[in-house]
Amino acid sequence: MRITKEKTAENRAALVQAAARLFRKHGIDGVGVAEISKAAGLTHGALYAHFPSKEALAAEALSHGMAHGYKAMASSKAGRELTLAEYLEFYLSAAHRDNPAVGCAIAASASELGRQDAAISARLTEGFERLVGTIERALQDLPSRGQARQRAVTAVAAMVGGIAMARATQKANPALSDEILVAVRRVLGELGGESVEPKPAPAAASGAGRRKKP
Amino acid sequence: MRITKEKTAENRAALVQAAARLFRKHGIDGVGVAEISKAAGLTHGALYAHFPSKEALAAEALSHGMAHGYKAMASSKAGRELTLAEYLEFYLSAAHRDNPAVGCAIAASASELGRQDAAISARLTEGFERLVGTIERALQDLPSRGQARQRAVTAVAAMVGGIAMARATQKANPALSDEILVAVRRVLGELGGESVEPKPAPAAASGAGRRKKP
Repeated sequence: MRITKEKTAENRAALVQAAARLFRKHGIDGVGVAEISKAAGLTHGALYAHFPSKEALAAEALSHGMAHGYKAMASSKAGRELTLAEYLEFYLSAAHRDNPAVGCAIAASASELGRQDAAISARLTEGFERLVGTIERALQDLPSRGQARQRAVTAVAAMVGGIAMARATQKANPALSDEILVAVRRVLGELGGESVEPKPAPAAASGAGRRKKP
Repeated sequence: MRITKEKTAENRAALVQAAARLFRKHGIDGVGVAEISKAAGLTHGALYAHFPSKEALAAEALSHGMAHGYKAMASSKAGRELTLAEYLEFYLSAAHRDNPAVGCAIAASASELGRQDAAISARLTEGFERLVGTIERALQDLPSRGQARQRAVTAVAAMVGGIAMARATQKANPALSDEILVAVRRVLGELGGESVEPKPAPAAASGAGRRKKP
């Protein structure tokens, strides 16, 4: 009995992980339950033993993908909270742009999420607020907390939109794709009262996605 | 012969229009060629007489949708170019958020576009550059053109991401959805050296999507 419960939990986790990866790579509408089941090493029927619908699995996978992406970002300097410049370097990196399957689930599905159901909207809202809260704490020297909140909301919108546009332009115009990452990083860095460019230290310290400026 | 040519052009236009509307509403992966053909009043086979593939139709529909959205925005004050505040009021409006099928094709498909082919990336790049150029011209009092370009790129990323996030949060948290539109409008307005809020005139003059602040 104990092994069965463990196996059940293991299968469920395998489904969520496979779904989170495939949805980020191909989009929610771009992947079917058959493909997810197969990637998890299970049958189609087994998926429905765990989730009543594709939507229910998508909601769980979105939370998993957001938590995973968030953890990767927040833990990239263990022991202290990152600076705004470091968050921007990490998020708006070529590495993030080039690896949607393991990147931010919000950016990967941004324009698809509005077409999904209320349960997915609720999960997205949690992840969005967490990201906004993180950026808000990293904003410095602002006259009011209301202003910090507005700037953090705008920064997250620009980060999500920036990654989506960098991916969308990449096949036709790689130089523009790179330019988008650099521009959004610089301008959002200035929003927080920091200048990302004149200080080379935080930029050089971030390994992920460090690349030549165009 | 002349009528046949006209009818051919008419059918092609009907397909592009139907595709542009349905792709913006349901996503590129969320609509099949059968549904598009039906919406255009044509058979499945007729579609392939005009376009070699769904991707080819999607590229054409993206251009059509971007041109249509751009025209709607640029013509909302005939006779003169809009101010930055007016562009932001128009784009980041509840009306735009609530009507994806007739809104900006870039925002409607933002995160899907990176998964499409090079032809779609090329069309997206054209539309993205046009939007960036428009915002860049509307930016005032900036020390350099390089700075204006970077801010315009960031503004477009935030506009696209802002609409996507306002749509994504709306079902679960309508107040947050409204807050996103207001925040992105205000912060981007400040980027251009204008303050959107203290001057009521430009905001009140814009009819589309004018709504109570939360």
